[in-house]
Amino acid sequence: MPSPPPFARWLDETNDVTQVFLAAGQVPDLVNLAGGLPEPALWPVDALADLAARAVREHPKEALGYPPIDGLPALRDAIAARFSTVDLRLGRENVLITTGGMQGLELIGKVLLDEGDVIAAQTPAYLGALDAWRPRGPRYRPVRMEEEAPDLPYLMRGAKFTYTVPNFSNPTGRLVSVARRQALVKAAQETGVWLVEDDPYGALYYDCGPLPRMLDLCGGAPYAGPVIYLGTLSKELAPGLRVGWVIAAPEMIAALTTAKQGSDMCTSGLSQQVACMAFETGLCEQVLPDILSLYRARRDALCAAMAEHLDALFEWEVPTGGMFVWARARDARLDTDLLMREGLAHGVCVSPSSVFDPEGRDRAAVRINFTLNPPDSLAEGVRRLAAASRAVLGRSQAAGQDRSPQAMIEQ
Amino acid sequence: MPSPPPFARWLDETNDVTQVFLAAGQVPDLVNLAGGLPEPALWPVDALADLAARAVREHPKEALGYPPIDGLPALRDAIAARFSTVDLRLGRENVLITTGGMQGLELIGKVLLDEGDVIAAQTPAYLGALDAWRPRGPRYRPVRMEEEAPDLPYLMRGAKFTYTVPNFSNPTGRLVSVARRQALVKAAQETGVWLVEDDPYGALYYDCGPLPRMLDLCGGAPYAGPVIYLGTLSKELAPGLRVGWVIAAPEMIAALTTAKQGSDMCTSGLSQQVACMAFETGLCEQVLPDILSLYRARRDALCAAMAEHLDALFEWEVPTGGMFVWARARDARLDTDLLMREGLAHGVCVSPSSVFDPEGRDRAAVRINFTLNPPDSLAEGVRRLAAASRAVLGRSQAAGQDRSPQAMIEQ
Repeated sequence: MPSPPPFARWLDETNDVTQVFLAAGQVPDLVNLAGGLPEPALWPVDALADLAARAVREHPKEALGYPPIDGLPALRDAIAARFSTVDLRLGRENVLITTGGMQGLELIGKVLLDEGDVIAAQTPAYLGALDAWRPRGPRYRPVRMEEEAPDLPYLMRGAKFTYTVPNFSNPTGRLVSVARRQALVKAAQETGVWLVEDDPYGALYYDCGPLPRMLDLCGGAPYAGPVIYLGTLSKELAPGLRVGWVIAAPEMIAALTTAKQGSDMCTSGLSQQVACMAFETGLCEQVLPDILSLYRARRDALCAAMAEHLDALFEWEVPTGGMFVWARARDARLDTDLLMREGLAHGVCVSPSSVFDPEGRDRAAVRINFTLNPPDSLAEGVRRLAAASRAVLGRSQAAGQDRSPQAMIEQ
Repeated sequence: MPSPPPFARWLDETNDVTQVFLAAGQVPDLVNLAGGLPEPALWPVDALADLAARAVREHPKEALGYPPIDGLPALRDAIAARFSTVDLRLGRENVLITTGGMQGLELIGKVLLDEGDVIAAQTPAYLGALDAWRPRGPRYRPVRMEEEAPDLPYLMRGAKFTYTVPNFSNPTGRLVSVARRQALVKAAQETGVWLVEDDPYGALYYDCGPLPRMLDLCGGAPYAGPVIYLGTLSKELAPGLRVGWVIAAPEMIAALTTAKQGSDMCTSGLSQQVACMAFETGLCEQVLPDILSLYRARRDALCAAMAEHLDALFEWEVPTGGMFVWARARDARLDTDLLMREGLAHGVCVSPSSVFDPEGRDRAAVRINFTLNPPDSLAEGVRRLAAASRAVLGRSQAAGQDRSPQAMIEQ
């Protein structure tokens, strides 16, 4: 039989990190610090089992029929009400229900990007967003969130949208300051460029109250601003429901709805009805304190173990929320792509920085998750990571490689 | 504020038929013959409510955690087992779980199509497939399924894939013959071009037993053939679950999985676990006889009413399964785009042929659904459609329009 026609070009540009992570799942006793997985013990199993049965029995049309493409009206209304403030008036027309937060990213790419279009993206950027947009063939313009006064309108002009994770960015775990949020909103209003506020970790503040969302800073009654806000139940309730949402100007919601129709027609009615009842019964509010105290303790445990074992090898900031610590190697010869693979041999898995770089070039940092594992596993994972780091460094020195920046320029 | 950047180009090419259908939902007492909706009374509500509760309580990891991108292993195994035969040996690596059948179509477009690539498509074609592929910018090469001996390898060569709905095609309701299925499989094997067998109506045979699937005709142990088979629980159990599947060669499943990761990461674990238990408990087999007898009676009721009221205006074949009758106007002046709108004024909604034509040019047929409405509503809808057709024809004649083919060429 002749060989089949070639796959679409973008498939040549994907990395194999997911395959590596999946293979890691087969390693016995591996400490998985790579993903962004929640602690299953936090799921309110009995409450959700009851809601699931009630969703089907009391709302069969909603749970079992085709929901509207844009979502169950009651769920859209509930989300509009949750996010409305005095200065931000949201209605159903501002809300689209998505199949997890990932689908929101994918649909934004679908409605805005033609090949070669520019995304002004917080860099390093969420791996999943890069995956979602790759099939549309975009180019990236990096935007640093830490700098004090870069010319944001200059960076944004000509882009289709700006992408940010202001609360505990994936991968860096950093919080974007209020001043910076204000500057981003102002630049979006000045240029007309859409501003994507991806906020899966917005409830996971461990040390202080939440900063205002860019959506709030933008405001509007009714809302019609440039901020496209993405939320999800994955971190606050349970990822298996696959319920996320987009809040945006009605014209953007309409375009995203057209795109969603051709993506999956609609999100699981069963999951949507359960989500709706979880909001009605206050279930999310009930489980949040336990989530925060458990994750805060694990963040502290990870950072204590890192201070003990990794201080000579990496530098990092203790994150005030989210799910990750971002650690940068002190020695440029510590190639973190090699470290990921060496880590697997030592029984630990972390995410290398290259997968968060649209250009794939940053090979000097790792993202470490602290939500999935208990404190003793976190400590053991850190010890293994330290051993793996020394092994990589040792081999690099033995090979006489000089990968300092100066040496790389001279090569 | 400056206007936002333009949307991606494909959004300019969508039709407004969905908006028209949605608006139709607001018309009081409208008889909706347009969609492809099931009869809600057929859903096994109590059984599904129990399964939903058990799914969460007994399988919290599967129902509430992130399922693997390609689906819950037990569900993939169940589908592999259901579709395996002596000559077709399927394993988990041949199966991907999708968020409804629609996502299977979307992912196939994503992994195979670059802009301008060719799809050899059964024409007229399912509206949803055209929607799914529009963002990838394909071109279409029409393939008629009724002709006896066209040169299929010639039509398929150079295409990325061939698209067919062999069982009760949407929109025409026609069955592709076994000889034609064999010819399609042979041509796919000869050319290497993928052959998409979209089969949402495969269980809905009302007058005879099912014909062999092209997947079966292709065979293989283990399976690695060119047929990409799409199935769904939407017609046989409940669409709100949004559980569909793709059966294909392992290399295709791997590519589709990469694409799915960037689309929605994974399908609702809750829905997948319910689907898995529905297979285990034989629920689909239990409900099928009631589905078949109800839909058979409604098909008969619709066709009887059509014979009484529409015979002078349209011609059609009585379908032996599926959800639709495809009726072609006897008078070319009966523009079915106008008829759809006139129908709304008369309290009936049907789907015009233009939306099933990749070029949007066929304006002489309508698709009429018979599964959603009871017999008396079907008859009333048909009477209204007859009245609306005479109104459109009357206006066309009054305006002295001559839309015969010869006149159109001369215009």
